[in-house]
Amino acid sequence: MKNYIQAQEWDIVENGFDSHLNKISESIFSLGNGRMGQRANFEETYTGDTLQGNYVAGVYYPDKTRVGWWKNGYPEYFAKVLNAADWMGLELKLDGELLDLNQCKVTAFQRVLNMQEGYLERTFTAELVSGKQVQVKAKRFFSIANDEIAALHYQLTPLNFSGKLDLISFIDGDVKNQDSNYEEKFWDEVSSAQEASGSYLTLRTKKTAFEVITGVKTVVIKNDKTVQLSIDTKSRDKYLSESVSLDLTLNEGISIYKIATNLSSQNYAPADLPDRAKEVIKAAVEKGFEELLKEQAAAWATKWQEGDIIIEGDVAAQQAIRFNIFQLNQTYTGKDARLNIGPKGFTGEKYGGSTYWDTEAYCIPFYLSTAPQEVSRNLLVYRYKHLERAIENAGKLGFNKGAALYPMVTMNGEECHNEWEITFEEIHRNGAIAFAIFNYIRYTGDSSYLKEFGLEVLIGIARFWKQRVNWSADKKQYVMLGVTGPNEYENNINNNWYTNTLAAWCLKYTMEAAGIVKENDPEQYQRIVAKTALEEGAEFADWKEISEHIYLPYDEELGVFLQQDGYLDKEQILVKDLPASARPLNQKWSWDRILRSCFIKQADVLQGMYFFEDDYDLESLRRNFDFYESRTVHESSLSPCVHSILAAKLNDGDRAYEFYLRTARLDLDDYNNDTEDGLHITSMAGTWMSIVEGFGGMRVKNDTLSFNPFLPEQWKSFAFTIGFRGIQLNIKIKKDEIIINTTSKELLHINIFNKLHPVQAGETVINYKGLLV
Amino acid sequence: MKNYIQAQEWDIVENGFDSHLNKISESIFSLGNGRMGQRANFEETYTGDTLQGNYVAGVYYPDKTRVGWWKNGYPEYFAKVLNAADWMGLELKLDGELLDLNQCKVTAFQRVLNMQEGYLERTFTAELVSGKQVQVKAKRFFSIANDEIAALHYQLTPLNFSGKLDLISFIDGDVKNQDSNYEEKFWDEVSSAQEASGSYLTLRTKKTAFEVITGVKTVVIKNDKTVQLSIDTKSRDKYLSESVSLDLTLNEGISIYKIATNLSSQNYAPADLPDRAKEVIKAAVEKGFEELLKEQAAAWATKWQEGDIIIEGDVAAQQAIRFNIFQLNQTYTGKDARLNIGPKGFTGEKYGGSTYWDTEAYCIPFYLSTAPQEVSRNLLVYRYKHLERAIENAGKLGFNKGAALYPMVTMNGEECHNEWEITFEEIHRNGAIAFAIFNYIRYTGDSSYLKEFGLEVLIGIARFWKQRVNWSADKKQYVMLGVTGPNEYENNINNNWYTNTLAAWCLKYTMEAAGIVKENDPEQYQRIVAKTALEEGAEFADWKEISEHIYLPYDEELGVFLQQDGYLDKEQILVKDLPASARPLNQKWSWDRILRSCFIKQADVLQGMYFFEDDYDLESLRRNFDFYESRTVHESSLSPCVHSILAAKLNDGDRAYEFYLRTARLDLDDYNNDTEDGLHITSMAGTWMSIVEGFGGMRVKNDTLSFNPFLPEQWKSFAFTIGFRGIQLNIKIKKDEIIINTTSKELLHINIFNKLHPVQAGETVINYKGLLV
Repeated sequence: MKNYIQAQEWDIVENGFDSHLNKISESIFSLGNGRMGQRANFEETYTGDTLQGNYVAGVYYPDKTRVGWWKNGYPEYFAKVLNAADWMGLELKLDGELLDLNQCKVTAFQRVLNMQEGYLERTFTAELVSGKQVQVKAKRFFSIANDEIAALHYQLTPLNFSGKLDLISFIDGDVKNQDSNYEEKFWDEVSSAQEASGSYLTLRTKKTAFEVITGVKTVVIKNDKTVQLSIDTKSRDKYLSESVSLDLTLNEGISIYKIATNLSSQNYAPADLPDRAKEVIKAAVEKGFEELLKEQAAAWATKWQEGDIIIEGDVAAQQAIRFNIFQLNQTYTGKDARLNIGPKGFTGEKYGGSTYWDTEAYCIPFYLSTAPQEVSRNLLVYRYKHLERAIENAGKLGFNKGAALYPMVTMNGEECHNEWEITFEEIHRNGAIAFAIFNYIRYTGDSSYLKEFGLEVLIGIARFWKQRVNWSADKKQYVMLGVTGPNEYENNINNNWYTNTLAAWCLKYTMEAAGIVKENDPEQYQRIVAKTALEEGAEFADWKEISEHIYLPYDEELGVFLQQDGYLDKEQILVKDLPASARPLNQKWSWDRILRSCFIKQADVLQGMYFFEDDYDLESLRRNFDFYESRTVHESSLSPCVHSILAAKLNDGDRAYEFYLRTARLDLDDYNNDTEDGLHITSMAGTWMSIVEGFGGMRVKNDTLSFNPFLPEQWKSFAFTIGFRGIQLNIKIKKDEIIINTTSKELLHINIFNKLHPVQAGETVINYKGLLV
Repeated sequence: MKNYIQAQEWDIVENGFDSHLNKISESIFSLGNGRMGQRANFEETYTGDTLQGNYVAGVYYPDKTRVGWWKNGYPEYFAKVLNAADWMGLELKLDGELLDLNQCKVTAFQRVLNMQEGYLERTFTAELVSGKQVQVKAKRFFSIANDEIAALHYQLTPLNFSGKLDLISFIDGDVKNQDSNYEEKFWDEVSSAQEASGSYLTLRTKKTAFEVITGVKTVVIKNDKTVQLSIDTKSRDKYLSESVSLDLTLNEGISIYKIATNLSSQNYAPADLPDRAKEVIKAAVEKGFEELLKEQAAAWATKWQEGDIIIEGDVAAQQAIRFNIFQLNQTYTGKDARLNIGPKGFTGEKYGGSTYWDTEAYCIPFYLSTAPQEVSRNLLVYRYKHLERAIENAGKLGFNKGAALYPMVTMNGEECHNEWEITFEEIHRNGAIAFAIFNYIRYTGDSSYLKEFGLEVLIGIARFWKQRVNWSADKKQYVMLGVTGPNEYENNINNNWYTNTLAAWCLKYTMEAAGIVKENDPEQYQRIVAKTALEEGAEFADWKEISEHIYLPYDEELGVFLQQDGYLDKEQILVKDLPASARPLNQKWSWDRILRSCFIKQADVLQGMYFFEDDYDLESLRRNFDFYESRTVHESSLSPCVHSILAAKLNDGDRAYEFYLRTARLDLDDYNNDTEDGLHITSMAGTWMSIVEGFGGMRVKNDTLSFNPFLPEQWKSFAFTIGFRGIQLNIKIKKDEIIINTTSKELLHINIFNKLHPVQAGETVINYKGLLV
C-alpha cells in the first residue's frame, strides 16, 4: 500500500519524482479513449524502470499456449492484447547530452491527470550531469471526441544556458509484449512513408494479420515560427524518425507538438489505411492541439454530466470515485460491439484477453446507469456474436446439441485460458452472461432484445447446464460436480451453491424468456425455434425438472447455504484470527493450503444472494453474510463491492463504508502492490456499484426505480447521476433527505424505503428518515 | 498396439526394417547397466526419425520450471535426466556415398536383444542409391560386470563392389534433451584429449557442475591387421573425431571396435577423471571385446539364476516376463544408494526426475525377492538420505516441527514436479515410503533397519499426517481435505479412502516401530528421540487419537469403501459401457469430464486393500473389487498388476491372466502407443508381482513364506526363483503341484494354502489340489 497520490477532487496529482514509483504512476496516469490508449510513459528517453505500453483495442495476437503439463481440451493459444507502436517518442540532446530523468537531478516534478477535461500534464525541472537545467511541461490526451486521435504538446525551456538541441521525433513499432510466452515479437512491418504531412508506419500482426497504421505529425515551434524537421534515413525495422538541430536560448522555450492517429484494419480496408491516416492527421493538424483539447474537455463534460458522482466532505473518496468512473470511460465507450472491457484496459498487459465475466457481473450495471442504453446493449450483442464459438467451445469439452459454454477469457469468442480448474470448471461465467440479459431488460425494459439476440444465447446456456448436471442416485437430486465458483480459492468442488443456484435460475429464466418472445412475436419465436432446433416439449420438461430438483447445499443448524459439499469439514478459522504474516494468503501460503482452508477469495454464496436478493429474507442474508464475511479475505478486487452492497442492505453502514474504501482507492493507493502491472479496470465498476447500489440502495424492480439510501458518517452528502429509460436523474443523498432532480417531463413514481413517491421535472425533496423502519 | 516383435524365449527379435517403428524399437532394444545406458540408436548415420539417447545415472540438470500459471509453492526447477555424449558414432562413406538406412534399400534387417547374455545385435544388408550393397553386423553391450564399460563391434562387408571406405569415428557431446523446457543445451565442454590410448571428452553440466568424461578407443581391423586412424582437427565444440580412408575388397569384411567408458564426478574427483578414464579404457582394450562379452554373459547368468521366471507353454508370456526382468536389472542394480529407478530408466527422457513412489510400491518387492538384501536396503536408505530435504519440502507447504513430505518426483530429494494437484496433493506417496520400510522388514526380518534409518523417516512422515488432517466438527472425525489419490483421474478430493487408510496405518506403524527400537536398543532409541525432538507422550497420544478416529468413507448399502467423499454422486457408468471411441479417456475427453466421471485411472481403494489385505475379508475384497474393477480404465501402467493379484486372490484366474497380459507385453506390443518415448520401467516390476504374488500367491507373513498358487490355463507350468533370508528357492507351479527346490541347509516351513509344509534342501513336491478349500 502506497500513499503518494495527492487527494484533489478532480485531479490525480503526484508531486516529486521517485523512480521506484514510476511503474505504478505509469498505470495510474494512463490515458485512453475506448479505441486506443497508453500507459503514462515519458515522451523523452527514460532508461529507468518502465513498462512501455501502447494499445489498440480489438487487435490481438494468438500467443502459443505455454503450460507445464498439457491437459486435454486446452486451447492452442492465448489471445493477447498487443503492445503497439509508440507514437510519442522524443529524443532530446542538449549540447549532446541526453535528457533522461534516470540520469538527471529532477525537481519540481508534478504529474497531473485532469479528469474533468481528460488530459495528462507533467512538469519538471531537470538538471543534467553537466549542470544544465531545463524546464519541461508536457501535456497530452487521447481524444474521446474523435477516438482516432491522440496529441501531445511538449515544452522545453533552458533555465541556465543557451546551447544546441538535437531533437529526434520518432515512431517505434519494434515493441514487445512483456507477457509474451516465448519472447516473440508480434508485429511485422508492412510499409512506411514519411512526407510533409507526417510519418506513417504500417504494421501487421503475425498470424492474425491485423494491420495498424500509426501516423504522426510532429511540429516544432520556436519563437512562434515552425521549425522544419528532416526525415532521417530509416535505420531499422519498424522505426521511423525525423530530426532537427536548433539553438536554444536561455529562458526561451520551444514547443513540440505531436498529433497522432492509430487506425486498424478492423475499421478500414488495409489498402485504405494510408490515405485515411493522412486525412485524419491533416484534419487534426488543421484544428491544432488547443482546439482538439477543447473538444476533449467538452466531450468529457458530457460524460461527467451523464455519470458523475459527487461526494461532499471527503476529498479522497471524491477523487477515488471519479478516478474509477474516468478510467472506465477511458476503457470502454460502447461505440463498437466488437470491443469489450479488458481487466487492465489500456493500462497494462497482465491477464491478456479482453473479456471476462467481470463485464456482465460488474460493468453492465455501471454502463446501464451512466451511458446510453446502446452501450450496454453492445456489450450483450458482443456475446451474441460469440454464440457459435461458445457452442464450439462446449463441443470441445464433450457437450453437444447446441450447448454453449462461453470462454473464461476471450478476445474473439474462443477460449484463451489454460488452467483446467478455471478454463473447464469456472463455468458460472455462463450464468453471469444470462443474468446480464435479465439485468439489462430489468433496467431498460427493452425485452425486444430477447427476440433479436437474447433468447438464442439463453437457450445455448440452458442446454449447457442441462448436460452439465447429473442425477445423483445417492442424493436423489441433480448435482453439479467438478466446478470452481467465483471463490477461486476452491477448485474442482462439488455442488457449488452459487453455480447450482445460478444454473437453476438460468433454466427457469430461459423458459420465461421463451414465453415472452412466443407471446409478443410468434414469428420471431418460430425463427428461433427453427434456428436452434429447440424441442420445446422435451427440453423445457428437462429444464423444469432440473431447476426444481437441483441440490443446493444448506446447513440446517447454522441456517446458511454451504458454499459447496463438505465446506463444514474444513477447519473453521476466522480471518480476524489469521496472523498478519499470513496475508495475503496467495503470496504466503502454498496453493493446497489455501484450497483446504475455509478462506474465501471473493464473494461466492454472497454473490448469489446479491444477484437474487428477492429470494432471501433479511435474516437469511444476515446469517450468510456474518458467516461468509468473517471467512473472506477479499484477495480479488471484485469482492469488497458485493460485501459493501450487502452490508448496506443489512444497515451495517460501518462495514459498508469499510468495504467501499477497499475498492475505491485500490489502485490510487496501490493496495495490493500490483498497480504497476496496470489498473483493476473492471473492479472499478464495482466501486461505482458500492455507492449507487450500496449507499444509494438503488434497485430497479417492476419497472420502478427504488432507493434505500444511507449516508456514510464520514460524508456530508453524495450525489449520483443516472440515466433510466430515457430520463436523467440526479440523486443527492443527505443525512435525512434524498433530493431528486430530473429532466423527466412525465410524472415518475420512485420507491423510497418501500413507499412510492411522485417525482416530476425539477427538484423533489424527500425526507427519508421518517421512512426507516 | 503393435505386434511386430517376434516371440522367442530368450530373445527380443525384430525382423525387417520399418522406419515408422524405429523409435519404438529404439526404446525396446535399449541397453543399460545401472550406471549408464542408451536407446538402441544406430551406430552409423541415420537421418530418419530417431530419438538419440545416452544417459548416465545420477547426473542431472535443474531445468527452469515452465508453467502457464504459477502457484505459490511450486519448485523453481525440474531435475532432468541428461542426454549425454554419444560415444557410438560412426560415419561411413562408401566411395563418397553415406551409409544411412534412411536413404538405402534395407533387406535382411534383424535386431536381436539377447537377454540371456545381455547384448544387442543388429544385422542388415543395405543397398545404397548407387546400387552398392553392404552387409553389416553390429553387436554391443553395456557391461554389468564392470559398469564403467560399454563396447561395440561393427562389421561391414561389401557385397557387390570393391571401393573406398571413408570412416569417421566420433564422440558427440553436443546433444540436447528432447524435454528441455527452454530449448537449452545442458552441457559445457571442459576439456578434450586425443591420443593413442583413445579420445576423451569431458563435459560439465550447467548449474549443477557434474563432470562426465567419455573415453572411447576405436580399433579398426582389416585382414586381421589394425588400421591406424588419424585424429581430426577439432571442428566444433563438444565433438571429437578420428578418421581413416581404406580400401574395401569385395566380400572381405572390416571390423570396427569401439570400447567406451563414462565416468562422472559423482564417483571421482574431477581432476582424476582423465587419468581414470585412460586406465579403464586401457584395461578394457587389453581384455578385448570378446572377453568383455564373456564377462557380461557370466554376470547375466548370475542375475538370471537369482531371479528368472520360466513359463512353459506360452512363448510370448515367457519372453515378456524375461524382458521385464531384464530391463529392471539394466536400470537398477542397487550398488549405489544415491541412485534410483527412473520411470523410463535409460530408455527415454519423458517424466524427468528419477524417483517416484513407483519405487516403493512396485519395485521394492521385485528387488527384495530377486536381488541381495542390500539392493532393497539401498533403495530405502536413498529416502533416508533425503529426509532433511523432505522436511524442508514440507516446510515450504506450511508444515513444521519435523514433518516430512517426500517429493512426488525427485533426483536429489528436492521436489521437481509442478502441477499443484499432484505436487502438493498426491501425498499418499509419503505412505508408500513408510510401507516400503514395513515391507522390507516383513520380508527380510531386518528390523535393525529401524534404529539405523527407518524410525527417523517414519517419525517425519507421521508428523506430516498429524498436521495434514483436521478435525471436522461436522463429521466428528478427522478428515483429510484436498488430496489426489493414486487414481489421478480425481484431483483435490476430500477423504480419499486410500490416503486416509494409509495415513492412519503410518501413525500406528510409527508407534509400533518406535516400540521395537525402544525395546531392542534403548540407547539408539534415545539418540533418535533426541535427534528428532520426539515428544513421545504428546505426539503418540495425537497419533493414536487420529489413527483411531480418522474418517474412512464407506457405503453401507453397497458394502464398499468409497474412494472419496461424494463418489456416489457421480453418474455410475461402467467401463464396459464406454464406447470404444472414448478410449483412452485421457486422449479423448477433456480433463474436467474425466474428473467428474466415475472412471478410475488406476487402482486406488484396491491398492489399499492390496497393501493391507489382512484387514479385509474375502467377501469385502470381492465387493470392492467388483465395484471398482468395473469402473477402472487402467490408463496407468501401474494399475493392472494390482488388479491381477487381487483377482488371483479371489480365485478369478481368467481375469488375473487378462490383467497380467495387459502389463506383461505393454512395451513389446506398444500397448499404449507411447513406447517410442521410452519403456515403462517401474511398471515392469508390477508384472513380476502379477506372477509371483498373483499366480504364485506368494506372501511373507510372520517370518514365513506362503504360497496360494494357481496355474493360468494357458500355461503348462511356471517357475520363479526368489531369495529369502539368505536362502534361494525355486518355486515351480504345475497344474496341481508345487515343486520347491532350495539350497537351504535348514528345514524350512512353507505355508501352502494355510498349511505349513516342511521343505528341505533339494526338491519338495506338494500337491496343492488337495489343499484348496
